[in-house]
Amino acid sequence: MKLSVLTLSALLPSAFALWPLPTSYTNGTTPLRLSPFFDIKLNVHNAPADLVAAVARAKGFLKTDKLQALVVDRGASSAQAISKAKTLPSLTISLNTNGAVKSISEEAIAPIDSRVESYTLTVPADGSGAVLKANSTLGLYRGLTTFGQLWYEWDGSTYSLSAPIQISDSPAYPYRGFMMDTARNYYPVEDILRTLDAMSWVKLNTLHWHIVDSQSFPLVIPGYTVLSEKGAYNAASVYTSADVKKVVAYAAARGIDVLPEIDTPGHTAVISKAFPEYIACNEATPWASFANEPPAGQLRLADEKTSQFTAAMLKAVATMFPSTLFSTGGDEINQNCYTQDTETQASLAASNKTFLQALDTFTRVNHAALRTEGKTAVVWEEMVLDNPVTLANDTLVLVWVSSANVAAVAATGHRLVHAASDYFYLDCGHGAWVGDFPTGNSWCDPFKSWQHAYTFDPVANLTTTEADLVLGGQSLLWAEQSSRESLDATIWPRAASTAELFWSGPGGDVQKALPRLHEAVYRFRTRGVAANALQPEWCALRPGACDLTA
Amino acid sequence: MKLSVLTLSALLPSAFALWPLPTSYTNGTTPLRLSPFFDIKLNVHNAPADLVAAVARAKGFLKTDKLQALVVDRGASSAQAISKAKTLPSLTISLNTNGAVKSISEEAIAPIDSRVESYTLTVPADGSGAVLKANSTLGLYRGLTTFGQLWYEWDGSTYSLSAPIQISDSPAYPYRGFMMDTARNYYPVEDILRTLDAMSWVKLNTLHWHIVDSQSFPLVIPGYTVLSEKGAYNAASVYTSADVKKVVAYAAARGIDVLPEIDTPGHTAVISKAFPEYIACNEATPWASFANEPPAGQLRLADEKTSQFTAAMLKAVATMFPSTLFSTGGDEINQNCYTQDTETQASLAASNKTFLQALDTFTRVNHAALRTEGKTAVVWEEMVLDNPVTLANDTLVLVWVSSANVAAVAATGHRLVHAASDYFYLDCGHGAWVGDFPTGNSWCDPFKSWQHAYTFDPVANLTTTEADLVLGGQSLLWAEQSSRESLDATIWPRAASTAELFWSGPGGDVQKALPRLHEAVYRFRTRGVAANALQPEWCALRPGACDLTA
Repeated sequence: MKLSVLTLSALLPSAFALWPLPTSYTNGTTPLRLSPFFDIKLNVHNAPADLVAAVARAKGFLKTDKLQALVVDRGASSAQAISKAKTLPSLTISLNTNGAVKSISEEAIAPIDSRVESYTLTVPADGSGAVLKANSTLGLYRGLTTFGQLWYEWDGSTYSLSAPIQISDSPAYPYRGFMMDTARNYYPVEDILRTLDAMSWVKLNTLHWHIVDSQSFPLVIPGYTVLSEKGAYNAASVYTSADVKKVVAYAAARGIDVLPEIDTPGHTAVISKAFPEYIACNEATPWASFANEPPAGQLRLADEKTSQFTAAMLKAVATMFPSTLFSTGGDEINQNCYTQDTETQASLAASNKTFLQALDTFTRVNHAALRTEGKTAVVWEEMVLDNPVTLANDTLVLVWVSSANVAAVAATGHRLVHAASDYFYLDCGHGAWVGDFPTGNSWCDPFKSWQHAYTFDPVANLTTTEADLVLGGQSLLWAEQSSRESLDATIWPRAASTAELFWSGPGGDVQKALPRLHEAVYRFRTRGVAANALQPEWCALRPGACDLTA
Repeated sequence: MKLSVLTLSALLPSAFALWPLPTSYTNGTTPLRLSPFFDIKLNVHNAPADLVAAVARAKGFLKTDKLQALVVDRGASSAQAISKAKTLPSLTISLNTNGAVKSISEEAIAPIDSRVESYTLTVPADGSGAVLKANSTLGLYRGLTTFGQLWYEWDGSTYSLSAPIQISDSPAYPYRGFMMDTARNYYPVEDILRTLDAMSWVKLNTLHWHIVDSQSFPLVIPGYTVLSEKGAYNAASVYTSADVKKVVAYAAARGIDVLPEIDTPGHTAVISKAFPEYIACNEATPWASFANEPPAGQLRLADEKTSQFTAAMLKAVATMFPSTLFSTGGDEINQNCYTQDTETQASLAASNKTFLQALDTFTRVNHAALRTEGKTAVVWEEMVLDNPVTLANDTLVLVWVSSANVAAVAATGHRLVHAASDYFYLDCGHGAWVGDFPTGNSWCDPFKSWQHAYTFDPVANLTTTEADLVLGGQSLLWAEQSSRESLDATIWPRAASTAELFWSGPGGDVQKALPRLHEAVYRFRTRGVAANALQPEWCALRPGACDLTA
């Protein structure tokens, strides 16, 4: 019998527990601790307020994280080395460029292909100051986030055992998102803000906000307030203009763009409460004949009045969100709903159009309206695969049905974002939620583990040209079986796995990643985000010891 | 196309949303509201303090629940009926018997076959007072819990639309439990207390506390404090004698018996930190050859010194818990661990015993020690199936490997508790937790939905005589992938499903149960327990509308 000997890695603090892992770095093994007088010096002329605030938050985390290293003795055996370590007096932050300084918030919402998130970070071991540089305040913000993950706490000292550190980092993909559904169940604003904080810690940069759906309409739209008045679950379960402003500003200050989605023409039954004339097959039963989930109800897309209404409403929503992206959805359109809707059939006959031609017109009207507001359209994959309509070349397509459809989407020449249910749906695997179905399982069983998402290949089966169309990817949490009660532990740490996939690039090793992901979980918790356990704490403190073949 | 018409049930508050459903009841449709001067009159001579406290809590919930009916208008359409309704002036609580009055706490920890949980509750519609009667304070407590679920809130009125109400209730099974594992990951005492509260609301009566395991030893045992000093995850992650006293008293006052488990001879690696001489194959690798999960390590059961130590330690634990039940575990014993342990082989040779004979002796020594403390032994199924040892006739057996093993366990003539992984494990379906296994799924996939547990038949394939051996059942949450961050939403409402199965009896209809279970979720939330969503709120407000074939 071979009795186990704890490996050295289990006795020493994990060398480097950054998440996501920088794309390029070197580090040493010299202890270093923050000076009691440690300060972050913002050497940026006319530093924008959001950068000043980000520095203040970073300083706060350095004081409050108090994260002990995830090793058996939590750092005790390093105590002497720590106490004798040189001290880091400061982190100096500066821009490489002398041009006009934009705020993090401005840069976060810039067109996706124009954002600069790269940075360099140097933490010397010799007691001289650390240096963070970037070409953008957004890059500085990413670097500041990295700096905040370098430190452990022992006996009042904030230390690293990995100096000197040299990082040159930039994301593999420009789109790294998380999708939140606030329609099936409502989440208070504070939950969205906390989620944005957590997203920023793992360098996610897009909150894809699926705001409304057939079940409820929580968005208060100026000029269209009747939609939420009649369609929200209750008067308190809404997002006012002020709420949206707060969410958008909070996100942008954390390097996150908020991509709103008003799903059309399906997923719109709730609009009937305010405007019944625009909705076909409203709450028709059996619902399974008219929709993928209850209640049924779709926009009467063939009626010109409907598309005029939709275009104007979308325009109104567009003014609430500064992002250059706007999703009009387009998933799960039910043909039978239209086939059986007398009004839609009459409209089609009158205009002498097929369903697909009507959808094409509907989509062009809506997208044209959004274009006048400076928006680039985002759609779900059906709009290029099942129901191919005319789309502007710059339209961004979300692949959700299956990762097997990625190549087909790429073949259309559109830019795409990975959001496939077989890898990135965080709601899968919790049983059937429809009633009276005792033997049912989740439609997208099984549960998507962090390991599964982590091993996804974003360019599988794509040509080099097609691979260039991949903007990135995201985790998604549809809320049929989720609520604020389960939010944090359902998202985290799994969405962090996807964050690293699309920041650090594919090909990561789950074995090497696990100890770092544990650290992300523990650091999230110190910061008030209820990330779930990946393993028994025994394993978290012993990197590798709970591996399958350990 | 058949456009849906909301059924009457969706417009009216659910008639009767009790959970678990009483075994016998009638109710009317007359509105009734609590008088502004409503009071609970405790007409019990020398009322025990825990009953007085329970009444105070019940009064508190009547004021603070403020649960609106789960219908589309949340009760608005009933406003006039409510305002005109007769008022209920009081609930009078009394015992049917004139004998010595025992406290809820005393009755909760009495031997399982001697507990009386039945009660009758009458709520007249005519403005006269309600009456709760029982033969025991434990029964009164159950009735008080039921009374607290009768009411909704609208515009300041606490009302029911279901008077008059007549309930005569008693549980189908005497054992209705929830198992909590505090060894893989530690839960602070407050989480256990909150869980006990929630358990009491659905009339669960047993907390099966799997306190320690190979990963950590959080229990501070008088005389054996070195076990937790060296084996707890850290100095704060422990349950002191005072903590245990608090948990046990809190549970008992809520009608819950705390069944402690010190799993032996497997699941004991952590004992090696204090007493390495008693542990075979300690942290041996590859762990999969020596244990079902890391770290490996089992008590050297063939060594007399080990069983002396174990028996004395178990005795010390026994004095901390007033329950008449005590689990010594006995699951997942790894033969290879003993085959390869030189010391165990020497002990077996010296005593001329086989492994099974040694296990028999070990078990008898431990159980005899517990018997001197008045404890009835509880064991996992292996102790009667895979490794059948000598057990007292009253030993209670937990079936966990598979519900397919129930009949075999019953055939041994022992009383049994349903705890089968294929129905009642709340941890299943969250992916593989062992490291370096990217393609792994949960070993007990899929997720066990509330519907699945609800449709379990406790007496399937059993003779009438064998059926009498079924004491009840429980949900279980092993904590490899759980932590306080996910606790409430992982347990609730699923454990409530199992609670109704074993209180109201099998054969329940998931379609009829769902609206009531939604109510349990919403009421839990008003009381501070973060129960997860079962469906979109749209469905919760429209009973039946999201059924598969609706």
